[in-house]
Amino acid sequence: MTLIQQKPVVINVGLASFADNLRQCGGEALELQWQPPAEGDIAAGWMLAQLMADPRIEAANAEAYARYLSAQPVLTGVSTAREVVPGMDGRIVLHSGPPIEWGDMCGPQQGAVLGAVLFEGWARSLDDARALVESGQVRLEPCHHHAAVGPMAGIISPSMPVWVVRNAAGDNVAYCNMNEGLGRVLRFGANGDEVIQRLRWISDTMGPTLGVIVEELGGLELKPLMAQALHMGDEVHNRNAAASGLLFRRLAVAALQSTRLDARKVAETLAFIAGNDHFFLNLSMAACKAMMDAAHGVPHSTLVTVMARNGVDFGIRLSGLDAWFVAPAAVIDGLFFPGYGPDHAARDLGDSAITETAGVGGFAMAASPAIVQFVGGTPRDALANTRRMLHITLGQNSAFTLPALDFTGTPAGIDARRVLDTGILPVINTGIAHKEAGVGQIGAGITHAPLACFTAAIRALAAGLPPSQQK
Amino acid sequence: MTLIQQKPVVINVGLASFADNLRQCGGEALELQWQPPAEGDIAAGWMLAQLMADPRIEAANAEAYARYLSAQPVLTGVSTAREVVPGMDGRIVLHSGPPIEWGDMCGPQQGAVLGAVLFEGWARSLDDARALVESGQVRLEPCHHHAAVGPMAGIISPSMPVWVVRNAAGDNVAYCNMNEGLGRVLRFGANGDEVIQRLRWISDTMGPTLGVIVEELGGLELKPLMAQALHMGDEVHNRNAAASGLLFRRLAVAALQSTRLDARKVAETLAFIAGNDHFFLNLSMAACKAMMDAAHGVPHSTLVTVMARNGVDFGIRLSGLDAWFVAPAAVIDGLFFPGYGPDHAARDLGDSAITETAGVGGFAMAASPAIVQFVGGTPRDALANTRRMLHITLGQNSAFTLPALDFTGTPAGIDARRVLDTGILPVINTGIAHKEAGVGQIGAGITHAPLACFTAAIRALAAGLPPSQQK
Repeated sequence: MTLIQQKPVVINVGLASFADNLRQCGGEALELQWQPPAEGDIAAGWMLAQLMADPRIEAANAEAYARYLSAQPVLTGVSTAREVVPGMDGRIVLHSGPPIEWGDMCGPQQGAVLGAVLFEGWARSLDDARALVESGQVRLEPCHHHAAVGPMAGIISPSMPVWVVRNAAGDNVAYCNMNEGLGRVLRFGANGDEVIQRLRWISDTMGPTLGVIVEELGGLELKPLMAQALHMGDEVHNRNAAASGLLFRRLAVAALQSTRLDARKVAETLAFIAGNDHFFLNLSMAACKAMMDAAHGVPHSTLVTVMARNGVDFGIRLSGLDAWFVAPAAVIDGLFFPGYGPDHAARDLGDSAITETAGVGGFAMAASPAIVQFVGGTPRDALANTRRMLHITLGQNSAFTLPALDFTGTPAGIDARRVLDTGILPVINTGIAHKEAGVGQIGAGITHAPLACFTAAIRALAAGLPPSQQK
Repeated sequence: MTLIQQKPVVINVGLASFADNLRQCGGEALELQWQPPAEGDIAAGWMLAQLMADPRIEAANAEAYARYLSAQPVLTGVSTAREVVPGMDGRIVLHSGPPIEWGDMCGPQQGAVLGAVLFEGWARSLDDARALVESGQVRLEPCHHHAAVGPMAGIISPSMPVWVVRNAAGDNVAYCNMNEGLGRVLRFGANGDEVIQRLRWISDTMGPTLGVIVEELGGLELKPLMAQALHMGDEVHNRNAAASGLLFRRLAVAALQSTRLDARKVAETLAFIAGNDHFFLNLSMAACKAMMDAAHGVPHSTLVTVMARNGVDFGIRLSGLDAWFVAPAAVIDGLFFPGYGPDHAARDLGDSAITETAGVGGFAMAASPAIVQFVGGTPRDALANTRRMLHITLGQNSAFTLPALDFTGTPAGIDARRVLDTGILPVINTGIAHKEAGVGQIGAGITHAPLACFTAAIRALAAGLPPSQQK
């Protein structure tokens, strides 16, 4: 058949309605999914075009990405934050997300800060705690400024025990607090007696017990464990059922073989862990933080090394710039627990998007069809979310393979340039907190990092100067 | 456009070459996947046509299937076979698959029988054990004649501890032996000192310890645990990583809270279980046996309640007939461990196809994309295997949902009529044993139940008489 005898084959770029006439005449048109770079911002698009071809950025990204890939996060201990986290002297409380003043914090984060002040014994009542914080006598700093991460409110105070995760392929160490379970917990802003009592038990009993167990284990490599969990339906952000079980098994066997532990404390600790399918989340976060810190600090690199939210702002950091780039945190569309809806929801909150930054979580959603029962959508959407992220990442991490996508590696290493170029936003699986302190989790859903962070970051990198948006 | 202006749309039934001419002329044809019922056996096809419309069979299958669906297998204890399994008096050894004489048994099964004789102390050497068995002084009977199942050689002797799984929705109880781990183990026909020593430790230490732990648990419902594992990448036949972990966690917490247990025995028992990702298989099998026995014994029902292999014969049983229908066991195509191939493989072996009979295993392969690394094929094949089984089953079990297929229930309840009608054979994920006693597992793969079993079963049911094939 010659060309002239065939029907026309049309590719339509831009508005779908461009092809309407053709379709009405019985023709067919394929829609090209394309939109102008930088959402049509011509100046940003021009800047981007120059950056896409810059060999210094290509080389820097290759270096940063290689450091991410070769990082080997190993759980080496459990200690109090005061003992191990840098700069935890005096009255200091770490929080999730980019820097924020007390007065600007969202309800759950304020509630959690006050809870930490009570837990530390710096005040005897909530009113006293509030007065102390308002007087400026408690330093409030981002976890990320202390090589640490925390889910939701992300509170770490000096007496809290933290996971210590060392990058065996480098010299960086990452920290995360302990998961308290669901319901009324500090990370959702609750600060009543039961919350403080639980924090005391965690610091008096669970932390020291886990410290000995981890010593007995002699270190636990976290990437193989996370990779195994990805083959068992977890994406190790909002679904950690398998990873928590795998961790439990390692801890239990080590505890039972130890002669240095009190049987009652072991039983209490293991029962607490066994009752919480999200327990591994905090360790997953510390592992991801260790991988991303390994990649941080390569001049000119556009690799995103942090995505974090404080319930007001969403912030990102690039490997090549020592700065935050922020935009308003989104309200999350998701599945709400009975009796709750979007009106009750806090904005996007927590450092747990470090998992997506490291290529798991929403990026590895193809591994976790069952998670859609928790965050919404269909298993097909879960596959599509992972596939879409391939357009904005530097590669695929063969340490984290996805069975449902024929064991290809998870898309990893977000290139801020590609986000801006494609308009495809990093997908994040997240819990949803009540906007008022202390109510707790009211749902879970899927959200996206705001484009404005990436635009600002790329602009700052292009300027080759500290950006005006820096906090 | 009128019909005459369109290209012809052709559906081709039968040989694909029927449509070759059409395709050469530029036409298109859709192949209908169809083959004559009963593989073209006209007499069987005619018989089948009558049975497909028989209201007595429809009613019987509805009843049997409802009993299967409503069965509630609960782990209620661990005891020695002598104490709980019916008819375990004197010198008796149970084996997998349909009935078979000692002289006809395959290598691994003979090796395992001799190992059981040594373990029981009925003989002091392999030669003495063989002489004792050959003299007819040891009864050899199928596990399935004793409400029991056993993987691979499927050996249960009186002193072995067994899982006791009670159907809380009925009055039947099912039993299975304990998983010994991989490598040189009795179920693959090994019978050396290390094997017998391990069996003694299992009966002296692990069995009694688990007995107390299960008592402390006060019973453990197995269907919810299996359903959870299906959301975690298991199909609970050849992949039990998640289920073994979930079981471990329940056992560990109960053990740590018990005051009736010896700490050393608990540590040994839990370390053994933690080291074996297949540990749950035997409990999965007992649960499936409890579900299928619940469905057994409904007159006229064509529901398949047993599929089992002894390494020589593949046997099935129907709910409506008290008989075995056998055909030669297949050689399995699969992935072999390094150094081994099909020439080394024993034929299809073990009672573990009770899992497929109950709608899990190969039937639930869509839940387990990662299993293809163990049994071969691609994740797409795994989905296709599950979908294909929908053509031969009475329904879908909503207790066992498959995330990757939009949380639809697993195809369950094999109707022998539909197998014969469609020629679609039940798919089975299976381990592959070396054909010589004692070498162990040499691979894993996918196999199918032979059609001849179903033809024979349907013929016997049609005749309304005990079949000639009955053993």
